[in-house]
Amino acid sequence: MPDFAINMQRLQQDINDLAQIGRDADRGLHRRAFSDGDRAGREWFRHRLEAAGLDVWQDGAANLHGRLQYDGRRPVVAMGSHLDTVPGGGPLDGALGVLIGLEVLRTTQEQGIELQYPLEVIDFTDEEGRFGGMFGSQAMAGKLTPESISHARDLEGVSLVDAMAAWGLNADDALAARRDPNTLHAFIETHIEQGPVLDRRGLSVGVVEAITGLFKWEVRLKGQPNHAGTTPMDMRADAFQGLAEFGGEIDRLLEEHGSPNSRATIGRVELSPGAPNTVPGMATFSFEVRDTDEKVLTALAHAARRTLSSLARRRDLMFEFDVLSEIDPVRCDTGIVQTIEGQAERMGLEYITMPSGAAHDTQSMSAITRTGMIFVPSLQGRSHSAAEWTNWEDIETGANLALHSALALAAPQ
Amino acid sequence: MPDFAINMQRLQQDINDLAQIGRDADRGLHRRAFSDGDRAGREWFRHRLEAAGLDVWQDGAANLHGRLQYDGRRPVVAMGSHLDTVPGGGPLDGALGVLIGLEVLRTTQEQGIELQYPLEVIDFTDEEGRFGGMFGSQAMAGKLTPESISHARDLEGVSLVDAMAAWGLNADDALAARRDPNTLHAFIETHIEQGPVLDRRGLSVGVVEAITGLFKWEVRLKGQPNHAGTTPMDMRADAFQGLAEFGGEIDRLLEEHGSPNSRATIGRVELSPGAPNTVPGMATFSFEVRDTDEKVLTALAHAARRTLSSLARRRDLMFEFDVLSEIDPVRCDTGIVQTIEGQAERMGLEYITMPSGAAHDTQSMSAITRTGMIFVPSLQGRSHSAAEWTNWEDIETGANLALHSALALAAPQ
Repeated sequence: MPDFAINMQRLQQDINDLAQIGRDADRGLHRRAFSDGDRAGREWFRHRLEAAGLDVWQDGAANLHGRLQYDGRRPVVAMGSHLDTVPGGGPLDGALGVLIGLEVLRTTQEQGIELQYPLEVIDFTDEEGRFGGMFGSQAMAGKLTPESISHARDLEGVSLVDAMAAWGLNADDALAARRDPNTLHAFIETHIEQGPVLDRRGLSVGVVEAITGLFKWEVRLKGQPNHAGTTPMDMRADAFQGLAEFGGEIDRLLEEHGSPNSRATIGRVELSPGAPNTVPGMATFSFEVRDTDEKVLTALAHAARRTLSSLARRRDLMFEFDVLSEIDPVRCDTGIVQTIEGQAERMGLEYITMPSGAAHDTQSMSAITRTGMIFVPSLQGRSHSAAEWTNWEDIETGANLALHSALALAAPQ
Repeated sequence: MPDFAINMQRLQQDINDLAQIGRDADRGLHRRAFSDGDRAGREWFRHRLEAAGLDVWQDGAANLHGRLQYDGRRPVVAMGSHLDTVPGGGPLDGALGVLIGLEVLRTTQEQGIELQYPLEVIDFTDEEGRFGGMFGSQAMAGKLTPESISHARDLEGVSLVDAMAAWGLNADDALAARRDPNTLHAFIETHIEQGPVLDRRGLSVGVVEAITGLFKWEVRLKGQPNHAGTTPMDMRADAFQGLAEFGGEIDRLLEEHGSPNSRATIGRVELSPGAPNTVPGMATFSFEVRDTDEKVLTALAHAARRTLSSLARRRDLMFEFDVLSEIDPVRCDTGIVQTIEGQAERMGLEYITMPSGAAHDTQSMSAITRTGMIFVPSLQGRSHSAAEWTNWEDIETGANLALHSALALAAPQ
């Protein structure tokens, strides 16, 4: 066991205090980016950074940074995540990684450790995507353009430019938040898993080796709408039956072309005309596939297309699809993953290496520095819900793994 | 070939004239029961009955009757169908059977045939179901009650009582439309098939031996809604996958427990929450099964329930269903079917005996007399659409088969 640890009582207090900010009558948290809840959360966090005696700085994308032993010359070991929430979100999604970052800096300071690389904690702006997703980390990675900034709007039609102006900020300054890769030594994000794997296996931590990419299609199978009573089974071009056959093929597609990290989901289905007494003439459905390997995604896309074409031909259906989105998978840095694994082993922790199936700021940060992620369990896999939770002991374990991993990078023995 | 035939020019004129009544801008017909279009259609038909010199009579359910050689003592051979349409319906659904009935009476009269049993043509009220379906024939079959009459409402909430009062009719008089079975010798309905079978086989007529019954369920499979990225395939309780498996089992269910007349349809599906990136926690869907044999329907219901229970258990889903409707199959009278078949053979027609997958007034009439039905082809199986059509030659063949079948019953040699 290491000879020092984070202050769990203090971290717990921070988590509990922050969980009061943006809390609504339904007990879910409402800290959507650039909302009043978000503002209150940031102000509270800025005070916590100042109270810890850290150098506080807000960049052009409204990312909030706290730094320890910073001198403007050496690259930093950064940690962080986001304080914004989905509407009705839980107390840990994002917040945990930011507060653990702060706690790591405070503990390091109290232990009087001299850093080879300064430590930095970052609260990234709008990870949850009011204006598209991962705005703050995308800005740091230099992925924004004047057009992407001026076009960004939320679902109610409010522009990013207006939302930032209401806070006295100029959205175009986000371009200047671009971070020179030479100023970064590494980035570590601690986050709740948002899935059931660690909880079901009874593990306190997981080491993320990759964030899955995905493709999302809207598929349409077109047949012939017919009277369900007067149309014999062998004279139908039943769009639902095509969909059902494809649904039944998904396991085979994954077995033949996927990896253990592959996921495929049909989450939305619409039949037309949609009446119990009419053979469906059209089935429109979503098909979303994720994997950590781009080649696997490509193979799955090819195989799915072949399967759909072939069953459509056989069933007298037309098949077409639109690609709604494609996101490349991102691999964490092998060296950082090994550093985290090494610290977990030194601490005597049981852990697994695993993919992240959800998106995180680490995806953006991977473009400009070496990254790694630590997962703690989500009870029953609950996520984006007020009922999201992680046991305190697991939070403590995750925080200490973050502490020692960050110090292994920032103050190597 | 028989030595006389219906007057095709006159029948064609009647069909074309009636197709102008209730015609809307979209060219579909609008003669919903007790609408202005229905009233105009009935008035036109009453004039046609009177012009033919028939005894005209409207019963308490607003069914319109025309009679030839009626003396109030002998039971009649009745023919008929309905002049009301679905909104935006076609020119033949229902109308054809009424107009062929009229033409049969006119031809019989012109040929000076002396009838053993008088002929009667009936336009049944509200077959299409503004107030529930087959109102007029249900009234004749004595299936109405004071309660069913007073509770009947259309989708806009208009009561049958008010709709009939607006025409100066007392809805309770429909109870008196009950017909003494002793006044009926037989009933024959000619109708478009509303399915693709005759058209695909290139046949002019089909002889209906039974009208399918059905059961209609709403089925719910309940699993667990989960994040599509973070939930491994083997930790899902995916309600859609349960539905897809059931869809794939339908052919097997029909092969093992069904008959050639069986039809099974999933026409409506709703996934919840219904997002591409969420494993569906609930699938709600319709399951409608038809057959001409009650025992087959029962066997299919049992087998479907077993299949759903077993796949739900295996997939960690909850399974429940509500019975939305159950309608018993009705067999036509073997003697009447043989009479129609005999006339078809005498006329040198190729024909098939077949089930009716749609509901017809014949269903009600089967409760009080011996029934038979003649189908003519629906081009491409189109039905309940302004595009519904049947070739004139097939209409002529169907009308002559109706003529000779009715006369074989009413004036046996």
